[in-house]
Amino acid sequence: MSRFFTSDLKGLKPYVPGEQPSDKKYVKLNTNESPFPPSPEVIKAVTAGETERLNLYPDPDANRLCQAMAEYYGVSREKVMCTNGSDEALSFAFRAFCGSSRGAAFADITYGFYPVFCNYYGLKYKVLPVNDDFTINPDDYISIPETVFIANPNAQTGIFLPVEDIEKIVASDPDRVVVVDEAYVDFGGKSAVCLTEKYQNLLVIGTFSKSRSLAGGRLGYAIGDGELISDLNTVRYSFHPYSINRLSMEAGIAALKDREYFNNCTNKVIKTREYTRQELIKIGFYVTDSTGNFLLAGHKGITGRDLYLKLKGKGILVRVLPDERIKNYVRITIGKQTDMEKLISEIDFILKGQSL
Amino acid sequence: MSRFFTSDLKGLKPYVPGEQPSDKKYVKLNTNESPFPPSPEVIKAVTAGETERLNLYPDPDANRLCQAMAEYYGVSREKVMCTNGSDEALSFAFRAFCGSSRGAAFADITYGFYPVFCNYYGLKYKVLPVNDDFTINPDDYISIPETVFIANPNAQTGIFLPVEDIEKIVASDPDRVVVVDEAYVDFGGKSAVCLTEKYQNLLVIGTFSKSRSLAGGRLGYAIGDGELISDLNTVRYSFHPYSINRLSMEAGIAALKDREYFNNCTNKVIKTREYTRQELIKIGFYVTDSTGNFLLAGHKGITGRDLYLKLKGKGILVRVLPDERIKNYVRITIGKQTDMEKLISEIDFILKGQSL
Repeated sequence: MSRFFTSDLKGLKPYVPGEQPSDKKYVKLNTNESPFPPSPEVIKAVTAGETERLNLYPDPDANRLCQAMAEYYGVSREKVMCTNGSDEALSFAFRAFCGSSRGAAFADITYGFYPVFCNYYGLKYKVLPVNDDFTINPDDYISIPETVFIANPNAQTGIFLPVEDIEKIVASDPDRVVVVDEAYVDFGGKSAVCLTEKYQNLLVIGTFSKSRSLAGGRLGYAIGDGELISDLNTVRYSFHPYSINRLSMEAGIAALKDREYFNNCTNKVIKTREYTRQELIKIGFYVTDSTGNFLLAGHKGITGRDLYLKLKGKGILVRVLPDERIKNYVRITIGKQTDMEKLISEIDFILKGQSL
Repeated sequence: MSRFFTSDLKGLKPYVPGEQPSDKKYVKLNTNESPFPPSPEVIKAVTAGETERLNLYPDPDANRLCQAMAEYYGVSREKVMCTNGSDEALSFAFRAFCGSSRGAAFADITYGFYPVFCNYYGLKYKVLPVNDDFTINPDDYISIPETVFIANPNAQTGIFLPVEDIEKIVASDPDRVVVVDEAYVDFGGKSAVCLTEKYQNLLVIGTFSKSRSLAGGRLGYAIGDGELISDLNTVRYSFHPYSINRLSMEAGIAALKDREYFNNCTNKVIKTREYTRQELIKIGFYVTDSTGNFLLAGHKGITGRDLYLKLKGKGILVRVLPDERIKNYVRITIGKQTDMEKLISEIDFILKGQSL
C-alpha cells in the first residue's frame, strides 16, 4: 500500500478470482466457465465491419441489447439494464440500495464478492449462516431491515431456493429491496424474473458468462421495476456510462437469438453434472445437490486443499474456497463429459493412494 | 427515483455523455471520436478464433496488454494498469487517493465527470477557475492539500499545460497525488509519463478512445509508481477484476503495435484541426489554441445553443457544454478534412443568415 492510499479503505480486502495460470495447459474446472464456445451466431456477429466501427463510442444505453433481453424475458424495455459483467450490476445495486441508513444481508457461504462490495462502499452487513446441509433458510430473510442479496442457485453450493421462497422473502417487506443473483439459473433453476411484474422491490441480476459462453465478453444485466433500473442507471452514469463495448454488444444479441444452441449446451452441462455427481458419490464424496454448472464436493479421506494440489499436479484445476465451513471441499466446474471422466479417474487414483 | 434509492446519493447528478441520436445519419463532431477506423492490424487481431474463446474469462490483470503498454512507454510492467475505458481508471483514482481526510481539486472548465465522481464517492472538492483565456494557472495547484486532477490538454478547451508546469505542481508537495488525465495528449501535447520515473506521487491516465480509434472497445490505462498502481489494483479487484474483455485486449495490443498508422491518423487530425481553426478565425470566431482533437469556438453573432441547433438541422452534430463560462461556445470534434470543409461552409451560411 502506498502512503497515498485513502485511510477509508485501509482494511479493504479485494476479491480473489480463481487462478488463471499460464505455466501449462490445464483442464480448467475452477472458474465455472462454459466448456463450450459461444454460439456460431456469435462468431458471425463479431464482424470485421463492426471492428472497423470501433472508433465510435458504443450506445451508452445498450438499447439493442436491452431490447433483445426484454423480448427474451418477456418484460418491457425499461425494466432492463446491461453492464460490463454481472459484478458491475451487483456493485451498482450495493451502491444504490444500501447506504448509511440501510445495510446488506447475505449468507455466509455464497458469492465471496458481496462482503468486498460492502467494504468498498463502507456498508454494514449481516451474515446469515446457511444450514448444516448448506441450504439457505428463507425464514432468516423474512422482514429483516437489510437489503437482501441471495445468489440463486447459491454460489459455491449450487443449491437452489424455490422461487416460492424468494417470493415470500420479497413480499415480507415491500419497503426493502431483494436482489436475486441468478448467475447459475440456466442449468436447472427457475428465474424469479416473472415476479418482477408483481413486486417493485425485486431486482434480478444475471450474466452471459456461464450459460451463454461469454465470460470473455463481459456482459451482465439487471431486471426489475423501471424505477429500480432508473436508480441503477443513475449510479451507472456516475461511474462509467459507456460500460459495454461494441463487439460484446453484438455478441450478446446474437447469443440471445440462438436458443437452440443455448438449450443444447445447458442440457449437456446438466447431464454431465448428474453423471459427475453420481460418480463422486460412488467413491465416497458428499456432493451438494447443485443446479449450477458446478458441484461442491468433500471427502472424509482427503482435505480440499490436498485434493486441489494433487489434481493440479495431474493437470486439472479445481477450486478451494476460503470459507472455513467448506475448507474440506472443492468446487468443481462441469466441463465436457471427457474432462469429467478424466477427473473422476484421477480422483479415484488419488484416493486409492491416500488409503495405502 | 425509487423509494429504495439510498439517501446518501440523493443529490447525485450523473454525467451526461454527448448525444448519440439514431434518428438519422449525422456528421458526428460532438464526442471527440476519431474519424478514422482502427488500424487494419486491429481488424486482423479480432479473429474468429478469439471470438470462439469468449467462453473463457479474460486475464484479469490484462498482462499481455499491460506489457505492450510498458514497452510502448518505456516503463516497467508494474507501473501499468489497464481498465474498461479511462473513466474507470479515473473513478478508481478518485476512490483510492481521495477520501474523508483528503478532497480533490480541479479546474472549473475541464472534464465534467470529475465532480460526478466526487459526489458518487461522497468526496469534498475544490474548483479552481481557469483564467479568462481558459488557460490553467499552475500556481493555483502548487502545494494545495487536495489530490489534483488536471486534464492535459484540458477537456473542452484543448489547451495544453507544459510538462514543466506539471512537474512544478507534482514536486511542490510529494505527499499528495497529482493525476494527469492525458486523454487528448497524442494530438500535439507531450506526455508526463517520463516524470513517473522521478516522482512517486504522479499518476498519468490515458485512453485508447481518441488517438487509437478504439472508443467502441473501451480501453483506458493508468501509469505511475508501482505502489500507486498496486493501490488502484486493490480498488479494481474490489469492484470488477475482469474489467477488460478478450476482444478489446487483442484490439489494444494490435493498435499499440501499428505505430505508423497511429502517426498517420494523429498527423491528419492535427493538420485538419489547424485548417479548421484558421477558417473559423477568418469568419470571426474566437477559437482556443487546442492541442486536442477538438476546438472550442465562440462567435459574438450567435449563441452556442443556437449554432448547435442550426448545425443539427443541417445534419452536423457539435456539442454545447453546461458550464456557464463557455455557454456561448461550441466544442467541435475534428473529423475528416471534408467534414470540416462542410462544417465551415454551413457555419458561414448560418452566420450570413443571422446578420440579415
